Amino acid sequence: MTDLAAVKAALTSQAVETASWAYGNSGTRFKVFTQPGVPRTPREKLDDAAKVHEFTGAAPTVALHIPWDTVDDYAALAAYARDRGLTLGAINSNTFQDDDFRLGSVCHPDPAVRRKAVDHLLACVDIMDATGSRDLKLWFADGTNYPGQDDLHARQDRLAEALATVYERLGEGQRMLLEYKFFEPAFYATDVPDWGTAYAHCLQLGPRAKVVVDTGHHAPGTNIEFIVATLLREKKLGGFDFNSRFYADDDLMVGAADPFQLFRIMYEVVRGGGLTADVAFMLDQCHNIEAKIPAIIRSVMNVQEATAKALLVDGEALGAAQRSGDVLEANAALMDAYNTDVRPLLAEVREEQGLDGDPMGAYWSSGWAEKTAAERVGGQQAGWGA
Amino acid sequence: MTDLAAVKAALTSQAVETASWAYGNSGTRFKVFTQPGVPRTPREKLDDAAKVHEFTGAAPTVALHIPWDTVDDYAALAAYARDRGLTLGAINSNTFQDDDFRLGSVCHPDPAVRRKAVDHLLACVDIMDATGSRDLKLWFADGTNYPGQDDLHARQDRLAEALATVYERLGEGQRMLLEYKFFEPAFYATDVPDWGTAYAHCLQLGPRAKVVVDTGHHAPGTNIEFIVATLLREKKLGGFDFNSRFYADDDLMVGAADPFQLFRIMYEVVRGGGLTADVAFMLDQCHNIEAKIPAIIRSVMNVQEATAKALLVDGEALGAAQRSGDVLEANAALMDAYNTDVRPLLAEVREEQGLDGDPMGAYWSSGWAEKTAAERVGGQQAGWGA
Amino acid sequence: MTDLAAVKAALTSQAVETASWAYGNSGTRFKVFTQPGVPRTPREKLDDAAKVHEFTGAAPTVALHIPWDTVDDYAALAAYARDRGLTLGAINSNTFQDDDFRLGSVCHPDPAVRRKAVDHLLACVDIMDATGSRDLKLWFADGTNYPGQDDLHARQDRLAEALATVYERLGEGQRMLLEYKFFEPAFYATDVPDWGTAYAHCLQLGPRAKVVVDTGHHAPGTNIEFIVATLLREKKLGGFDFNSRFYADDDLMVGAADPFQLFRIMYEVVRGGGLTADVAFMLDQCHNIEAKIPAIIRSVMNVQEATAKALLVDGEALGAAQRSGDVLEANAALMDAYNTDVRPLLAEVREEQGLDGDPMGAYWSSGWAEKTAAERVGGQQAGWGA
Amino acid sequence: MTDLAAVKAALTSQAVETASWAYGNSGTRFKVFTQPGVPRTPREKLDDAAKVHEFTGAAPTVALHIPWDTVDDYAALAAYARDRGLTLGAINSNTFQDDDFRLGSVCHPDPAVRRKAVDHLLACVDIMDATGSRDLKLWFADGTNYPGQDDLHARQDRLAEALATVYERLGEGQRMLLEYKFFEPAFYATDVPDWGTAYAHCLQLGPRAKVVVDTGHHAPGTNIEFIVATLLREKKLGGFDFNSRFYADDDLMVGAADPFQLFRIMYEVVRGGGLTADVAFMLDQCHNIEAKIPAIIRSVMNVQEATAKALLVDGEALGAAQRSGDVLEANAALMDAYNTDVRPLLAEVREEQGLDGDPMGAYWSSGWAEKTAAERVGGQQAGWGA
Repeated sequence: MTDLAAVKAALTSQAVETASWAYGNSGTRFKVFTQPGVPRTPREKLDDAAKVHEFTGAAPTVALHIPWDTVDDYAALAAYARDRGLTLGAINSNTFQDDDFRLGSVCHPDPAVRRKAVDHLLACVDIMDATGSRDLKLWFADGTNYPGQDDLHARQDRLAEALATVYERLGEGQRMLLEYKFFEPAFYATDVPDWGTAYAHCLQLGPRAKVVVDTGHHAPGTNIEFIVATLLREKKLGGFDFNSRFYADDDLMVGAADPFQLFRIMYEVVRGGGLTADVAFMLDQCHNIEAKIPAIIRSVMNVQEATAKALLVDGEALGAAQRSGDVLEANAALMDAYNTDVRPLLAEVREEQGLDGDPMGAYWSSGWAEKTAAERVGGQQAGWGA
Repeated sequence: MTDLAAVKAALTSQAVETASWAYGNSGTRFKVFTQPGVPRTPREKLDDAAKVHEFTGAAPTVALHIPWDTVDDYAALAAYARDRGLTLGAINSNTFQDDDFRLGSVCHPDPAVRRKAVDHLLACVDIMDATGSRDLKLWFADGTNYPGQDDLHARQDRLAEALATVYERLGEGQRMLLEYKFFEPAFYATDVPDWGTAYAHCLQLGPRAKVVVDTGHHAPGTNIEFIVATLLREKKLGGFDFNSRFYADDDLMVGAADPFQLFRIMYEVVRGGGLTADVAFMLDQCHNIEAKIPAIIRSVMNVQEATAKALLVDGEALGAAQRSGDVLEANAALMDAYNTDVRPLLAEVREEQGLDGDPMGAYWSSGWAEKTAAERVGGQQAGWGA
Repeated sequence: MTDLAAVKAALTSQAVETASWAYGNSGTRFKVFTQPGVPRTPREKLDDAAKVHEFTGAAPTVALHIPWDTVDDYAALAAYARDRGLTLGAINSNTFQDDDFRLGSVCHPDPAVRRKAVDHLLACVDIMDATGSRDLKLWFADGTNYPGQDDLHARQDRLAEALATVYERLGEGQRMLLEYKFFEPAFYATDVPDWGTAYAHCLQLGPRAKVVVDTGHHAPGTNIEFIVATLLREKKLGGFDFNSRFYADDDLMVGAADPFQLFRIMYEVVRGGGLTADVAFMLDQCHNIEAKIPAIIRSVMNVQEATAKALLVDGEALGAAQRSGDVLEANAALMDAYNTDVRPLLAEVREEQGLDGDPMGAYWSSGWAEKTAAERVGGQQAGWGA
Repeated sequence: MTDLAAVKAALTSQAVETASWAYGNSGTRFKVFTQPGVPRTPREKLDDAAKVHEFTGAAPTVALHIPWDTVDDYAALAAYARDRGLTLGAINSNTFQDDDFRLGSVCHPDPAVRRKAVDHLLACVDIMDATGSRDLKLWFADGTNYPGQDDLHARQDRLAEALATVYERLGEGQRMLLEYKFFEPAFYATDVPDWGTAYAHCLQLGPRAKVVVDTGHHAPGTNIEFIVATLLREKKLGGFDFNSRFYADDDLMVGAADPFQLFRIMYEVVRGGGLTADVAFMLDQCHNIEAKIPAIIRSVMNVQEATAKALLVDGEALGAAQRSGDVLEANAALMDAYNTDVRPLLAEVREEQGLDGDPMGAYWSSGWAEKTAAERVGGQQAGWGA
């Protein structure tokens, strides 16, 4: 039997971090489609993020991406965020959009390029000091496109050295989150291609290095919730980059492609104690063709719905069926929660927080879309493409 | 026993079509890296293509992409090509880089957008008339990113209608080549996702509509040579877009990722009579990090090597083993050809044509790379990204 | 707005065909685990199937597999079924468990083996005459394990010839359903590997040849509902072999691995008119570790739930959003139905039919499991392995 | 420049371990095809293995599988092997073919079943003591078929406990090799699904626990040579189970499906010092339709050819190109070795050892196939199926 009050309390306290770059334009290699009202500055991104938090009550932090969110005064940016009910979240580094990084960054064969990459990472830690961010999130596009292009072994050595340098620099309470990715933009060998590689490096580095699971960064068929359970068991799960995919790193709205998988992931998070521990729930999506703010609101809601279902699993019934080896009954106990329509429960949770039960409707009624489309004219729309 | 003279004759007559856009910059959604000496105009692309043909003797035609290769006078462009020993090949349409095409082109829910797309396709046929091109190559980025986004059934109806309009417009000796692609840039449902769909439409259209096999456009594990054999058997193979991949549509140099697969494909081409029939062998690759002209030379050579091995298969021994059900012997007959080092044979074929036996070395010695890097300064480098 | 009475009527009339072999033991290549109470004869399988129909009201027909269900008198077997409220469904051929079929059946290089295979298929049509079955379901394990092992092209010719012979033999009102499969047990090239190949053969044969979609028989990532929509549009969808998979042809209970996919498939069935047309909804699963009868009851319920959700889609709202290009709203219209808990509705539908609203509970209370475990002792348990 | 004498020396000393069970019948879940002359006892398997070694000179050890190779006197079996020029290799445990193991072995929810599994593993170490085997190879079929079926986290705890018990029992010079597998026979969550999980357990256990890479046990598209390089860098590569696949764990002859991949793997082995270190090169294949002994001879030859090509890579040229960032040249350096026909070199190496240069021809001429087919009549042919 589930304790409904505890479920509601857990849902009320759940926080999802949105990404500054998701408010800007994005696209595929074929085309970046622009949208009206897209922010042109980091502050406008925060304005949009504040709307997502206003209507969901569940998105209080915003991740930055350097250099896309470069400003002169990060403390001022943090204050700007605070004024809107937000705090700044993870700092995301970028070592893939400079011509020097054609053959890699921290794994590049040329020490001068590696140094340049490490300097950027260290500068990101400086920014963390200014913004008060806890997490440095590292995703490396490093890899090779052709067999023989570079030495796989040596690239790991270089990677380990760079990570150690940056890890040393971390201040009190700061963490390093290392992301892995199956492929893209490297098409033969990616230098951190799987959780095993990220885990091995984090283990070597120390307790403040943790693995980030991007739900779109796996080989076809990979059981992601198994990885989540394993990393939680090993105390090495740092957080999620949430999104969804049918094929590769499609970066669709989380929960859109396989809501059952999202539920299974959240079930392992709940079961492994990840909901209360230091696991960061971040969105990392590309809203190429859909309106950005409502897509992010929908994504936050999808995470909440999966979490609600995970919390509703009757652990006692499930455990009893598992222990007795009753395959059908154990599966049924899990599915019973999944098949529940939790939307009324979440509306209730929102209303108890003084929010509208229907965040999408509330957003559309707010006039924000029309206002920004009218006001944000001229200037350079933010984007993350090359 | 193989007839070496016939093998050499087949190799001498084999032609690979290079793509104008492959001489320009390309990249991933993360970054387009620029290179020195990249052409800035369709004529400069033809200059580069002429070098590939000069050193390989096997790349006499060049595919154009509209609007990337838009010029005022296509007849003049064709003459410019002829002066360099080239002819213009397939015309590739582009209905994916206009903001109107955010939700599709010929499958778009709005008839006005569909009309715009069809008008572009008809304009491409006009260009074919001017250039003397035989083939209109159609790849549609059309599709949807989210379940429910549009009606799958209705989109097929719209596609069929658009294709019929364009097919009607084809002149004497012109063909329509329809390409399929598993995914990207659509991430839920692509409107022409597999050979079956392309085949069904081509069947409906008539004998001049044929299927194009892009070797990077399949689901993981797909047996491409089976599709090649089947389309040849059905007289519906129009040609290839050659490239290679380890993961998705990586667009690496053909033969780089799985040379054995390329050999198996070429074996089915040879066995099915595709080498002498109207099958177009085109390259469609993205040379994101490697030098462009030598990468294309290497690709032509890789196709030649796979073809040479396919031609060397001892058909009599193979057939005898197959008929007797000797699995190991039949496999060995095929592998015997694959394991042969055909580079000396191809050097001989080239030398008999008055070419250097080593096209790569000859290109590097020619000074072309240095010359274009020095001369092609300023202006806008050609590229195919958004 | 959905018409609830129409939804209920559709659900009441939906029929799912269960497979005789699913009541017997099954397993993987590593081990077949036996279970108590498993039937030992075709009649005992029908007894079990009658239980599934008794508790669900939705499983009135049973597919047979020849030779696993070989009996002396098929008319008597049909009468036995009728006495239990059942009718006999599709006849499934088996050309993969005879030593002669090591290198294939209808595609075998040896004409004598092909003749033996065709004779078996013709014998299956004889059985259809006796049982009154409408459908001959053909799945061929034919294929090759090694490149070169046999001629891909010639195998298609042999296949076409065999199919034509059998098609000719079909009687009034009989159909041929051709199944495709990505791989297994052939590991290099399967002779009917995808819907395109099955479709091309069926087109050649005539209107009574249709394609069967087994939901576990696709390459990773394949959009199955697209195939369903396409085959319905082409009037070539004969039916389904339902099951589910995380990896390959795992043959888990339908809806267990990806309930959202099952919903999307059923949505396309409803949208394409497949619910009322001649589409056969068959289960084809391997209950390796779970109890068989309740697993089949669960599977029937999963199909019903997916169908109910598909029927609940508000077509008007969906169509309006699609026409206006509102990606988020269109997706939301579909998801609104998916997120609905339809279990109360289905309980109601069952109770209106005089059934227990909870088929699983009713089955467990019936004592059938205990009774069969006690009585079915000795003899040879039915199974489908080698 | 490569040192040909060193290449030859390395090839001469390379040893491939064949598997006793590969000489017996095998199949898929659909059918096990039997062959004439298949061994009926462990001694007959050794007789066959001796033939493989006799003709290749490169297969001096034979892995056993318990209980398939259970004998009363293992020391006598070892002596029997020695008399034929062989030694006994890895002991492979089997915890998947007992009805008790339906829901797992060392991860089973019931402690009594876990104890039974651990007892079997300990018994295998006893056998190692008797046979003088160095390696205990552990592959667990453990896993779950349905979400919720069992607790993923708890299963890891149980696994860790079992492994620790067995690790403790290892004697001087004995090692534990832990194998991972993506899926099959578990279809939802496998308990050791990837190298990361195996690595994490081995790290916890100690230096004598190492990871085994079965080349057929990965998700589609996985870069296996990256894993090999990483494990070698971490001193955790214990060995290989060689085979090949186009789809899943197809267990075809190694090198048959992707000879270029095998070459890349062997290149990383050579580069990482794995050829001289304690890496076991084992075959683990299912020869379902091809003759067994010659298929194993072919497999040994395929490993030799890939190794020869890997040894022929011009490390100096490759390193120079890599350091200078010349993508095409570095790739070309690797491909130059791959494209070399090494069959003459290997024939020479064999002849220098006093062997026939053509092991396949020599085997077929030996009369062994006819002799065993005639003599091994009656009795129970060995097999590995259920």
